[in-house]
Amino acid sequence: MTTVGILGGGQLARMLALSGAPLGLRFLVMDTEADACAGQFAPLLVGDYRDEAALAEFASRVDVATFDFENVPAESAEWLAQRIPVFPNPRALAVAQDRMVEKSLFRRLGIPVGEFAAVSARTELEAEVARIGGPCILKTRRLGYDGKGQFRIRTAADIEAAWQALGEQASSVGLIVEAFIPFERELSVVAVRGRDGEFRTWPLTENWHVDGVLSASLAPATVDAALAQSAFGHARKLAEALDYVGVFALELFYRDGQLLANEMAPRVHNSGHWTIEGAETSQFQNHLRAVLGLPLGATDTLGHACMLNWIGAMPDAAAVLNQAGGHWHDYGKQPRAGRKVGHATLRADNPTGLAQALQQAGDALGRQAQVAPVVGRLLT
Amino acid sequence: MTTVGILGGGQLARMLALSGAPLGLRFLVMDTEADACAGQFAPLLVGDYRDEAALAEFASRVDVATFDFENVPAESAEWLAQRIPVFPNPRALAVAQDRMVEKSLFRRLGIPVGEFAAVSARTELEAEVARIGGPCILKTRRLGYDGKGQFRIRTAADIEAAWQALGEQASSVGLIVEAFIPFERELSVVAVRGRDGEFRTWPLTENWHVDGVLSASLAPATVDAALAQSAFGHARKLAEALDYVGVFALELFYRDGQLLANEMAPRVHNSGHWTIEGAETSQFQNHLRAVLGLPLGATDTLGHACMLNWIGAMPDAAAVLNQAGGHWHDYGKQPRAGRKVGHATLRADNPTGLAQALQQAGDALGRQAQVAPVVGRLLT
Repeated sequence: MTTVGILGGGQLARMLALSGAPLGLRFLVMDTEADACAGQFAPLLVGDYRDEAALAEFASRVDVATFDFENVPAESAEWLAQRIPVFPNPRALAVAQDRMVEKSLFRRLGIPVGEFAAVSARTELEAEVARIGGPCILKTRRLGYDGKGQFRIRTAADIEAAWQALGEQASSVGLIVEAFIPFERELSVVAVRGRDGEFRTWPLTENWHVDGVLSASLAPATVDAALAQSAFGHARKLAEALDYVGVFALELFYRDGQLLANEMAPRVHNSGHWTIEGAETSQFQNHLRAVLGLPLGATDTLGHACMLNWIGAMPDAAAVLNQAGGHWHDYGKQPRAGRKVGHATLRADNPTGLAQALQQAGDALGRQAQVAPVVGRLLT
Repeated sequence: MTTVGILGGGQLARMLALSGAPLGLRFLVMDTEADACAGQFAPLLVGDYRDEAALAEFASRVDVATFDFENVPAESAEWLAQRIPVFPNPRALAVAQDRMVEKSLFRRLGIPVGEFAAVSARTELEAEVARIGGPCILKTRRLGYDGKGQFRIRTAADIEAAWQALGEQASSVGLIVEAFIPFERELSVVAVRGRDGEFRTWPLTENWHVDGVLSASLAPATVDAALAQSAFGHARKLAEALDYVGVFALELFYRDGQLLANEMAPRVHNSGHWTIEGAETSQFQNHLRAVLGLPLGATDTLGHACMLNWIGAMPDAAAVLNQAGGHWHDYGKQPRAGRKVGHATLRADNPTGLAQALQQAGDALGRQAQVAPVVGRLLT
């Protein structure tokens, strides 16, 4: 009997546990919150990731550890990795935790990336905005997610406000300024690499964000095969450079027929939730297969799928469940503004059928704006 | 937040809980055994189904109750139904618990069934064997499953041994003698009926048993559409007569182009496990949708699927996980002779691909005999 420990007990840990149960696995989830939603389906250890006693208890109760949450302190991951197998490895986690280190690695690997620079003082910010030109975004290097810790600089006149907003974090989490990419599309590669180096990707996914938070994902993305191959090549290079084991996502911008890497997430990813119903093997099960050294599952799609995120509160399930290919995912969380509380996946055998189901669900929910860009993409 | 109570904590309860989690449900499983395998993923209440205090605690902690196990005492189900909603209703459970009542209902509904008669004394058995003629099977009316509590009577000379084996159960669980059906195929309808009367079936499934225990299931069964429609009609009549809510299976024998009903199971069924990967909506999720009054999900297949049961101990997972459409289900049980400890499902887009995957998995596991009849059916 193998017990998998998961650091972080949110919806990703919950879906990992649900997906890993059929492999005969048991789970132990560690989270700082006693009501972490994975705790509804797996034993939960409440503790701080920096508390060595809690980490020691965690380590003593599991055979292998992985993450639902990438901002586990790198030193905690290292501490664990000295005692039990930890996948992905702490270095991969550390790289993904720091946008500056991550983007530098992209550049070193030849993965196209927009202009960027670390900034530690306001004068540096001014110099880099002048060098990069055009709109830029000032971001925290660490601990940013879902659009938090970002400030857009359209012209030099915005620098004062940007520094007011984020400048004091320069010495704690660090700052990076990036060229703003006026992208036509946002894409992601969700990929998995096994302990033996086997590498697979699900088809490219197109994503739509609202207020910096993922709103909808469509797979397969309607892009040409050469572009997809190029994206998969970037993901593979990255995985091999990091000796990565498990599932990760590489987010990309598409513009003028070119891809630019934005960031990686060293874990199962929101843009891969559609794989539960839309692919032969889900990202969750393949992450566990990779972590355990089992053969990876096929990543072929079953038709066409769209995931819709539910933020803040769950809408009415019936509108989705009434659709033939409608699947519901309520994470069992309390409603809270801005919180990811669930998602739905609509699956159909062809793009037209998917567009129709999305339109009907969107109409029934009064969420036409959420489905509109996806429906538009499917019908063009 | 809705909590679903499940009486019985085996693999069916376990798969119900895993499948219901995405609906935002919580579960409470009641079982007589502290190591019931559903308890690994849902809170477990250990108690006897006849213990009113345990039932009262169960009732107080759940919003609705259902079953993983059909031999819950009918009076316990009735007791619960007076306090909380119980689906399927206790009458449906009671009918399915008694082969004599069940077969009488089949006959009354015009569902074709082989000859049968209740017997309460050896002289009655002799008279009925003479009347029915040919080989017969003496069975317990209640509490029989997986071929247990059965004795085959080829000629009148076997009556003595049959009565020795089962006669003393005539006054406790009752006995029934049935004509032996020299069937060509065993088929099952797995169907679901909602609270509002909506009725759906998955495609007809063909089943192979070894020593009375299900060994393999293939879906869709390769039978003509009229035969399938006739089977679905029988299932529908039965569900409506019982005001059934939830998933059930109707097992049928096929011979000379005709169907004969064998028995019903008032719960999710082993011959429907393939629906987890092989259908748009699994039997587990649709059972919960029905019980909760939610819209039923589509029962369309995703290609072709074969389920292989693992009895006694789990074989090597890699042989199945190496197949592109290979899916593994380890119930987390201790090995024990005759025990259902897990299953695998192989899924493919076409029958040839499925046959090939089955053959490869069978060869790798040294289980050629288990896959051979399915491969044979797929290739003819």
